[in-house]
Amino acid sequence: MRVSDEELAEIPGLARCETRSMAEIVEQAKKATKDSYPHEEVYGDFCTLHTYIDCPPRDVFDYLADVHSQEEYTFSVRGLQPVDDTGLHVGWDRVDEMTRIFLRIESNPDAMTIDYHAAWDQGEDLWMIYLFRVLPAELVLKKPGSVVMMTNCHHPYYAENPYPEKSPGPDRVWVGELWRYFNAGHRIEMDNTKAILEHRHRNGIPIVPGVVR
Amino acid sequence: MRVSDEELAEIPGLARCETRSMAEIVEQAKKATKDSYPHEEVYGDFCTLHTYIDCPPRDVFDYLADVHSQEEYTFSVRGLQPVDDTGLHVGWDRVDEMTRIFLRIESNPDAMTIDYHAAWDQGEDLWMIYLFRVLPAELVLKKPGSVVMMTNCHHPYYAENPYPEKSPGPDRVWVGELWRYFNAGHRIEMDNTKAILEHRHRNGIPIVPGVVR
Repeated sequence: MRVSDEELAEIPGLARCETRSMAEIVEQAKKATKDSYPHEEVYGDFCTLHTYIDCPPRDVFDYLADVHSQEEYTFSVRGLQPVDDTGLHVGWDRVDEMTRIFLRIESNPDAMTIDYHAAWDQGEDLWMIYLFRVLPAELVLKKPGSVVMMTNCHHPYYAENPYPEKSPGPDRVWVGELWRYFNAGHRIEMDNTKAILEHRHRNGIPIVPGVVR
Repeated sequence: MRVSDEELAEIPGLARCETRSMAEIVEQAKKATKDSYPHEEVYGDFCTLHTYIDCPPRDVFDYLADVHSQEEYTFSVRGLQPVDDTGLHVGWDRVDEMTRIFLRIESNPDAMTIDYHAAWDQGEDLWMIYLFRVLPAELVLKKPGSVVMMTNCHHPYYAENPYPEKSPGPDRVWVGELWRYFNAGHRIEMDNTKAILEHRHRNGIPIVPGVVR
């Protein structure tokens, strides 16, 4: 126990067994558990998708950490080329005919996190961040394979394009206008990822195929 | 581009811009986006909570990676003592009068992941896994402070106690019976964490206080 009991007593609103009964806490949790939840409550500020994939976690990690995998599993990112030797790449986001997407992947093989730092139109300020983590399903679901999680946070630039002068045209849809559809839209790409990885794993096809430049 | 176009064409159900129009994809995402979602659809297999905390990310990481922080921010985990020198601890889970909780924290300071591997009643099989990640809010929300995410997966042992003979009594509630309330119940503890960390950060109180053994 820490030297903190007096200090904790000063913080308003804490729910701890020293001051609230188990029955009260359970009652509070039951009241907050509903049959359904509004879209805004679940996907308003943060959007996390989860999926199970029948493919070993290290393979799934390697796949997601390879920049060219996006040219397979995304609906729209194509033609990625390195911009420099820092890992920054540029490609096309076929959501729009003329939109360039810049991105850099930062991954951690120990924690199996893979972070995509991306942006439309410019590569200096990579503010669109897709945070992936791969979990061994053996650990969390007691079965072979992987769980993949992917999170987006509602960065203020989704609400307003910070660099409108870099847009290929004034009528181009802004990515943030699609925020409401992020869960459903990325579900399509998560399903693509699952289908590709399970197909390769099942058929003994290399998980990360060679790249033709 | 990879050497995979022919192979990808063989995988049923893929949604890629080579075979589907943007209009079709957007239509599919719009159809799948609803005004509200049933509890089971959102929290049935996986339960992720997110919160913003006005406290620097490294401090939040240090706090969550210290085993004794649970004696402050959880409703019910108290009296943690090391079992051995592997990091395994045992304490009480005051959800029940007589229930012991065993746990070990595995954290990664680079990815800022903090994984709690825990179990009731025994310490050999730590199957209840709480996966935390701390994000710099500057990166994902363009403001100071942190975003904390916490995920639980619906491990099959939640559905049935794998070691009933280790239970302190036959009438003891099983942790898995509370799965439906995990989002709401852990929201109470996430709010505790936020209140404690913001209080300390605002008032210049050490984020990880000393421990009295």
